[in-house]
Amino acid sequence: MPPRRLLAAALLMGLFTTAAQADEGMWMPGQLSDIAAPMRAAGFRGDVRTLADVTRPPLSAVVRAGGGTGAFVSGDGLLLTNHHVAYGVIQYNSRPERDIIEGGFIAAGRSDERPSNPDFRVLVTVGFDRVTDTVLEAARGLQGRAYFDAVDAASKRIVADCEQAGDVRCSVANMYYGTDFYRIRQLELRDVRLVYAPPRAIGNYGDEIDNFMWPRHTGDFTLLRAYVSPDGRPADYSPYNVPYAPPAHLQIARTGLHAGDFAMLAGYPGVTFRHRTADEFEAQVTRTLPQRVAVFDALIAAVEQAGQGDADVRTRYAAQLQSLKNNRKRAAGELEGLRRSDAVTQRREDERAMLAATPAATRGEIDALRTVLAEGDAMGERDLLLGLVASQTQLMRAALLLERLRLESARPDGERETGYQRRDHALIEGVLRQAQRRYAPAAEKALMTVLIGRYQQLPDAQRLPAFDAAFGRTPESLARALDTLYAGTRLGDEAERLSRFAAARDGRALADDPLIALAGPLVAAQLEIEHARKSRDGEQLRLRPAYMQALFAWRASQGRAVYPDANGTLRVSYGRVEALSPRDAVTYAPVTTVAGIVEKHTGQAPFDAPRPLLDAIARGDFTGTDEPSLGTQPVNFLTNLDTTGGNSGSPVLNARGELVGLNFDSNWESVSASWWFDPRLKRAIHVDMRYMRWLMAEVYPAPALLEEMGLPAR
Amino acid sequence: MPPRRLLAAALLMGLFTTAAQADEGMWMPGQLSDIAAPMRAAGFRGDVRTLADVTRPPLSAVVRAGGGTGAFVSGDGLLLTNHHVAYGVIQYNSRPERDIIEGGFIAAGRSDERPSNPDFRVLVTVGFDRVTDTVLEAARGLQGRAYFDAVDAASKRIVADCEQAGDVRCSVANMYYGTDFYRIRQLELRDVRLVYAPPRAIGNYGDEIDNFMWPRHTGDFTLLRAYVSPDGRPADYSPYNVPYAPPAHLQIARTGLHAGDFAMLAGYPGVTFRHRTADEFEAQVTRTLPQRVAVFDALIAAVEQAGQGDADVRTRYAAQLQSLKNNRKRAAGELEGLRRSDAVTQRREDERAMLAATPAATRGEIDALRTVLAEGDAMGERDLLLGLVASQTQLMRAALLLERLRLESARPDGERETGYQRRDHALIEGVLRQAQRRYAPAAEKALMTVLIGRYQQLPDAQRLPAFDAAFGRTPESLARALDTLYAGTRLGDEAERLSRFAAARDGRALADDPLIALAGPLVAAQLEIEHARKSRDGEQLRLRPAYMQALFAWRASQGRAVYPDANGTLRVSYGRVEALSPRDAVTYAPVTTVAGIVEKHTGQAPFDAPRPLLDAIARGDFTGTDEPSLGTQPVNFLTNLDTTGGNSGSPVLNARGELVGLNFDSNWESVSASWWFDPRLKRAIHVDMRYMRWLMAEVYPAPALLEEMGLPAR
Repeated sequence: MPPRRLLAAALLMGLFTTAAQADEGMWMPGQLSDIAAPMRAAGFRGDVRTLADVTRPPLSAVVRAGGGTGAFVSGDGLLLTNHHVAYGVIQYNSRPERDIIEGGFIAAGRSDERPSNPDFRVLVTVGFDRVTDTVLEAARGLQGRAYFDAVDAASKRIVADCEQAGDVRCSVANMYYGTDFYRIRQLELRDVRLVYAPPRAIGNYGDEIDNFMWPRHTGDFTLLRAYVSPDGRPADYSPYNVPYAPPAHLQIARTGLHAGDFAMLAGYPGVTFRHRTADEFEAQVTRTLPQRVAVFDALIAAVEQAGQGDADVRTRYAAQLQSLKNNRKRAAGELEGLRRSDAVTQRREDERAMLAATPAATRGEIDALRTVLAEGDAMGERDLLLGLVASQTQLMRAALLLERLRLESARPDGERETGYQRRDHALIEGVLRQAQRRYAPAAEKALMTVLIGRYQQLPDAQRLPAFDAAFGRTPESLARALDTLYAGTRLGDEAERLSRFAAARDGRALADDPLIALAGPLVAAQLEIEHARKSRDGEQLRLRPAYMQALFAWRASQGRAVYPDANGTLRVSYGRVEALSPRDAVTYAPVTTVAGIVEKHTGQAPFDAPRPLLDAIARGDFTGTDEPSLGTQPVNFLTNLDTTGGNSGSPVLNARGELVGLNFDSNWESVSASWWFDPRLKRAIHVDMRYMRWLMAEVYPAPALLEEMGLPAR
Repeated sequence: MPPRRLLAAALLMGLFTTAAQADEGMWMPGQLSDIAAPMRAAGFRGDVRTLADVTRPPLSAVVRAGGGTGAFVSGDGLLLTNHHVAYGVIQYNSRPERDIIEGGFIAAGRSDERPSNPDFRVLVTVGFDRVTDTVLEAARGLQGRAYFDAVDAASKRIVADCEQAGDVRCSVANMYYGTDFYRIRQLELRDVRLVYAPPRAIGNYGDEIDNFMWPRHTGDFTLLRAYVSPDGRPADYSPYNVPYAPPAHLQIARTGLHAGDFAMLAGYPGVTFRHRTADEFEAQVTRTLPQRVAVFDALIAAVEQAGQGDADVRTRYAAQLQSLKNNRKRAAGELEGLRRSDAVTQRREDERAMLAATPAATRGEIDALRTVLAEGDAMGERDLLLGLVASQTQLMRAALLLERLRLESARPDGERETGYQRRDHALIEGVLRQAQRRYAPAAEKALMTVLIGRYQQLPDAQRLPAFDAAFGRTPESLARALDTLYAGTRLGDEAERLSRFAAARDGRALADDPLIALAGPLVAAQLEIEHARKSRDGEQLRLRPAYMQALFAWRASQGRAVYPDANGTLRVSYGRVEALSPRDAVTYAPVTTVAGIVEKHTGQAPFDAPRPLLDAIARGDFTGTDEPSLGTQPVNFLTNLDTTGGNSGSPVLNARGELVGLNFDSNWESVSASWWFDPRLKRAIHVDMRYMRWLMAEVYPAPALLEEMGLPAR
């Protein structure tokens, strides 16, 4: 029985328990009518069938904005998203003589609205259609790399056909790991302007210190406006463009939510791994994450060691060191969370029960899938290390990039690997140019020593002849090789890199250099790895649907629907406002107030609340935007909504579909939620719309915008 | 009307409100019958008159132990106090081959109980008598230094007379700032032995990281036993000694407390400033604490700068740097707390109202007091800086110490200043010896540059001719003077210091040295300062009673009694178990559980819970020691009891007088409570006796001790 039908049967049998459903799930809009009963039981008061249609309100008001999500809040294209999602737009318009990052921005009128950086995009979804049969037609009967290529080619054809009509950007989304494919059609709005941004110390109050933290006191919102050509079509910036009339816009609620109240959220979550196999969970917890923590620790130590007593090296590697530390923190946090939730055991037990209920034929395919996954896992540490060689170095990366570009550029543009096509040249050039400011020979040799040193310790099966030939098998041979390479290379000179870039993008031979010479065999080895990976990916695309079918049946037997893992497509989550008790004896209320802004204020960034805000808090006039039960102004609130990266800027709606909040972060305990949703600990953090309204009414007034959003000036 | 009578009148008039009384107060036992009504209203179920008698149970079981408090818990002298109070005893008995700090200690029987370090004392209060008239008789009609000296001499006479009887140690305690004086008679038990100590990772779980923190998970307790000579008298350690039979011992409760339950605590709080004048509050917040923070910041920067690139200097100054940082943190925390509570405004408004209700004659004395306090305050920054010169340096301190010792030693021992008598010689020698390991010339010059540099900026009225002559008035003259002094001094050599020590303690002239030569005029200047301070102290002793009388009357009109500020004498506080909400949206429950031990466990000190503890938690057998409402083992709990330094080890009793907890810390927000008790934020942290019982039953068993305390083995 197909999953939808099994689910419908389960619904008819009244098997649903709201408790099992209310917390977890990033639902495709089209699924919502399947889960109407639990949604209503959780408190939803609207029409689920309307909600399930991406071309009707409220979902037609929800768009992709920059790297996150946004929502239209007026009929004239006014768009609400996070301050951090719109940060590039704000930065682009900031000038030494008028620093709008620090001071914030309120457009004096429509003519004062400021163009965004040219690459900022708003994507309005106008179509979402199932194309599974078309995508899989040519792949049936194939295996491995051939299966992968057939799916890839079919997807590219669908996109090309779809974009022929013009004005729309198309893509094919893979749902349930190869089970289903959808064609997504989106209007690409390119003229987006800055309308209202709070000062940095409101929009990013607390910055890195408060990042992932609750309780929170951040006004992380910004208003943009989308413009189109006078005939209503997407267009580059032009002073003659007119505000875009969106298919729908959200109405901001006059009241807020309380603990236990229904809430839902729509947005574009990036990637989750919830439906991965128990083997993959185990690999993540016992190998991948510990390996990542260990190698990041070693890289951090190497960079810090290289910077000791050398201020210039410290400056050049400051950003990379920060990024390594963030990556290390994320990996350690994810590991800690998965262990705390005992995710591997729980996933394993659930899978074991599922397999016991699965027909033998399907189990055979799942066994085949496990074999493929084990093959990939066996190469995991090598792929991690060689990936870091290509991302954490400057000259070595440049050499690999140039050699690969040279190879790809010998082929017609359409056949080149993504990332090496003509459209990618500017990005590659940028990487080659900036190497200049981020490189010191001793530091790069130290990083390479860590990465290749660890690579040398890998078992034979993971190692590659080209790398062994280049660096030998001992610390001494590695040190000699690096000394020779970095003493001889001229790639530290920007002109040397750029002249080779000019040759590489035309597919011409590259001028001689020790690193370039080495890149030849290394890139050839990387291509072998890439081929093996695509072959495994093809097998996974072919075999994972069996696992998903088993899961659909198992969940249906439990009365539960299955959402697809996040993949950057529009999803809806629902749940409720909920407190957090992350540790013994600690409870965090689900609503914060302006009192916390004053408590955190030190006068020093990132806790340097602006004087007008502190004065307004001291005045204490919160009429119309206060939370009556607290007798003061709410700032942020907390829900158990299911979110991940990409949900930044997602509108949070109440039971009647009104806009009550703006999602902008998660708590630290949620870092592991991309793999495992632990209802005790997974929370999402939102700006309370009443805080935005109060700021726009009382602190940095913008009465015309409030009126445009249909809100009272107070 | 005397305060006691005014209070009684207020009680008769039914003016007491329990809300106003329940939180704040370190009551003298004798006062308790005055506040019987609010105590009973708060939930006390015992007989207040019995409680008020220090010679009857339960207070006769409460003793001074080391630097804190302890309580007898068996008829055979078994004494319960904190692990950190008994730390010296544990350390004294630890050996490389048997590290009982790390591993803990359980005596195999009485003969295995280990003697404490010789200076560890247990003091049992056997008498507490008012001697006000005797103390003040000779002082009446005097002023200033003469008043001070008369009080000092009378007190010394009382002590000498009292100790003639032998076996008791006597002291005179000044209550209400010169209003009342009490003679305290205490048995001094000198043979105290270690009986039971948990491992360091239980007794000090979390160490500095968790210090001042709640939620907490520390088993900060240790059991000692007091011994006396076979004829029952205090004696030095001897194998022939026998367990001391205390006048009373506390019974450990079988059950625990819950939020809102009555609790009380007895102990020896060190010093508080609650009844200081509004001017003194203002000076503390606007001058003293900011000055302390600023000068500690400057000293920290100087030490860190001196240690840059010099590992030897960093080692020598590591302990001092840590201490400077702790002092800085404490001062900043106190300042932050007093500002947060708006203590100055509240104290000022209360005082203004009090003065309006005070007769003119008393107001005149209070005005005179304010003048004296202003004189002291005007010298505050100088006294801070010169005090730090004498405490934060090594060679300069040594020179000042030697010169002062030489001067004092010329007088009969009984007339020498406290700290320079024969009994103090060992301590002085210790200071002079250890200078060796804690000194580096560049660092000491940097510290002196900070302190004298700031001193040079003071207004003329605060400066002293001797210091100006020594260091000049400019940075250049200071640098020259320090260069000359430290280039020429031989005090960096231990033998040079000790030979001068031998001369100084005999009152002989000291061998020539630039620092010694300088110490002559500097000590003379210090003596002038000391004389001025004692004169002001005399005036305060004479005049503060007027302020206290005004306060007694004012509080009585509000239906409130007045406790004396803490002064190291036995006090009783009462209140209740209470949660803490220190910041917006944050609530900490008042009870922690073993789950938190596991959550905090990292395997690395200070969060390295011992394996037997983790195993026992995993087994989950908490029968008889669990908290039924939580279904697990409680560890620590939180009350609003009024405590300060010295209350470490105080027994916490329930409404029936049974022992339910052991006080060991406060929350960080309480750092400012020595000046201002903010009921929203002041909390005390206790070991739940059920945690101790569980550890002694299940984890590190000591069935004989449980039996001795009248407790079941489980």
